[in-house]
Amino acid sequence: MPDVGIVGAGVAGLHLGLMLRAHHIPVTLYTDREPKAAASARLPATVAHHAPTLRREEGLGVQRWPADAHGYGSHHHYVGGPAPLRFRGDFTAPSRAVDHRLYLPALAEDFQERGGQLRVAQLAPSELELLSGRHDLLVVASGRGPLSGLFPAVAGPATHRTPARLLCAGLYEGVTPSDPKGVTLSLAPGRGEVIEIPILTAAGDVTALVFECVPDGGADAVAGTDPRDDAGRFLRTVLGELAVHHPTVHERVDPAAFRLTGPLDVVQGAIVPTVRQDYVALPGGRYALAVGDAHTVVDPIVGQGANIASYSAQIVADAVVEDLAFDEMFCRRVARRRADVVLGAARWSSLMLRPPPEHIRDLLGALSLHKSAADTFTDNFGYPDRQWRIVATPERTRAFVARHTAA
Amino acid sequence: MPDVGIVGAGVAGLHLGLMLRAHHIPVTLYTDREPKAAASARLPATVAHHAPTLRREEGLGVQRWPADAHGYGSHHHYVGGPAPLRFRGDFTAPSRAVDHRLYLPALAEDFQERGGQLRVAQLAPSELELLSGRHDLLVVASGRGPLSGLFPAVAGPATHRTPARLLCAGLYEGVTPSDPKGVTLSLAPGRGEVIEIPILTAAGDVTALVFECVPDGGADAVAGTDPRDDAGRFLRTVLGELAVHHPTVHERVDPAAFRLTGPLDVVQGAIVPTVRQDYVALPGGRYALAVGDAHTVVDPIVGQGANIASYSAQIVADAVVEDLAFDEMFCRRVARRRADVVLGAARWSSLMLRPPPEHIRDLLGALSLHKSAADTFTDNFGYPDRQWRIVATPERTRAFVARHTAA
Repeated sequence: MPDVGIVGAGVAGLHLGLMLRAHHIPVTLYTDREPKAAASARLPATVAHHAPTLRREEGLGVQRWPADAHGYGSHHHYVGGPAPLRFRGDFTAPSRAVDHRLYLPALAEDFQERGGQLRVAQLAPSELELLSGRHDLLVVASGRGPLSGLFPAVAGPATHRTPARLLCAGLYEGVTPSDPKGVTLSLAPGRGEVIEIPILTAAGDVTALVFECVPDGGADAVAGTDPRDDAGRFLRTVLGELAVHHPTVHERVDPAAFRLTGPLDVVQGAIVPTVRQDYVALPGGRYALAVGDAHTVVDPIVGQGANIASYSAQIVADAVVEDLAFDEMFCRRVARRRADVVLGAARWSSLMLRPPPEHIRDLLGALSLHKSAADTFTDNFGYPDRQWRIVATPERTRAFVARHTAA
Repeated sequence: MPDVGIVGAGVAGLHLGLMLRAHHIPVTLYTDREPKAAASARLPATVAHHAPTLRREEGLGVQRWPADAHGYGSHHHYVGGPAPLRFRGDFTAPSRAVDHRLYLPALAEDFQERGGQLRVAQLAPSELELLSGRHDLLVVASGRGPLSGLFPAVAGPATHRTPARLLCAGLYEGVTPSDPKGVTLSLAPGRGEVIEIPILTAAGDVTALVFECVPDGGADAVAGTDPRDDAGRFLRTVLGELAVHHPTVHERVDPAAFRLTGPLDVVQGAIVPTVRQDYVALPGGRYALAVGDAHTVVDPIVGQGANIASYSAQIVADAVVEDLAFDEMFCRRVARRRADVVLGAARWSSLMLRPPPEHIRDLLGALSLHKSAADTFTDNFGYPDRQWRIVATPERTRAFVARHTAA
């Protein structure tokens, strides 16, 4: 029975740890803070979990917030411009967003109850050799901290040098849910996007608004106005941006009731999308494998981060269970098996951050005309490999549209 | 709906053609002779189909020779030397060998009955552009003929420069089947191997003997004595080789009844194991994909050829059904998805052709002591990726043996 060490207690690390414990494999999870501390920390993310991730959660028996009750089934789209587009796509199975400040501590508790070892420690890079001597396989599952730089970045379209968006993600009251309940994806070409997500928090069902602001695109003030300095000014900035550029969200906002659900319920910043090497050889002959943000950092624009982290955890867990050694052959097999989904998500995310090429503009037009195409595009948020196969080239997009036009 | 052209009507080409027809995809199969002509031709091969291949045949509805009636469930091993080893491994589901002179024409008939187009033509390389213009995707599924050189060989352990064995495969009467019915793998270290296979032919159940003769290893005369020149001398050579080096086969031979089942029921020659590139770009921007022998030529030593051809056909068929374009992205995805199984089979085959390294000798010893290990090793003839994970390195073999010793 191998012994696995995991650094990082986010979705990737916890899913992997729980999956391995389901096979009674000894696992130690290293994290830089008590999982319970997350509950009273700043909002970490607002990502939805799509059906394949929810199925993995059900398989693990950690599904406390069933999608039937707390999920949603639709994407509502708005594409601004001279002739705005409005259309809806429906999922074949619901997605669900829950505040990770509820989610992660709950899964950490499950992990420990099932015999997983959790060590709270600030790891220094110098401790890598020690860790690697202690475990047959070391998995790095955190994009933060001293070990995240272990895996060199891979040049390519999904590795950026600078942030493509300035972000402002927050939880709000005063927004009436869309009907049918769903995410709204509102695109203001050249300026940025708003992603509105129905999300379950400790305070109940609220609304997450993620502002994706193109640097110098006109919406920067949303990401640059700190609500701690002037809460009123922040809200006016957000409302003004919605009013002018995101009408299908704004029309459901009650200005009198509109506010952040709490002072910690907003996070502003930016990330640099980066794909890193799948694995590295460690001194001593063992290997470290990257999963989640240690492997692929994606902008939240199409909500793939947690989903590919969970997918990658499943590929690694299956490989650990099936295999006999944790050598380079093992690592390469993991890399091959997750490439379609994980790199597909990274490339698709990256494409959506760029000024849309003609075939993407054509695709959006076609989605607005053909409900079956919009449904497929929506469902593919759970299957980023399929989405990438549609958007990767103009020929592919044309073939996709042609199939839905004919049908 | 794409249109697919397939060059070559062996297992890879026919399985792929039938799989695509099951999805109503237009397919044209190009072959250099009438499929029915195979029935009266020289023995082409004596390969067993393992359980995963039989399941694909069942899925296609082309299973005329059910494994329950015509298959076998065991491998009987003999390893010669100062302290010979004898041990048996059992499959979890039976394998089955049927003369491809029955098998291939039957599947070609099914293919045509299901709307597949079959063109009998000698293709010249100059016609490649014509073919490629006619089909959205061109698949080359033949290791023979003018198109087989289209895919450059890839240097590596499974690509040899010269044949590692001189081969003599024939069908015989006068051999009592082993009990339980099964294949016998008889190894004469330094000299070669005999693989005895219960096989169904037009004449009923007979015995295939495949002599794998190490060049200059002492058994060359078996591959070098042409039965057409002197049938008696050929049989005496074969019998002599069995008597001295393959006792567990020889003890079941009745010398008075021992003979080839017909003058065409023997084939002598040699092959050069070669792994070729998965695909090439064609003039005009389309791609040709290699499957079966066009992609991977393996020595029959562990009976993988037909099985990986069928597996590769399934990967390609699934990818065609799922995908929108047949570009380089499509080809790379196919390559990634089949690599573990197809290259695993090629590397394992190649390893078994080399003088066995210490960990393989240790493995054979362990298989002879632990029935569960021998069963797994046997079943893995259907799962060459799993087998390669066991034999690829000494560490892996040690881990495999340790698990079965502990159990």
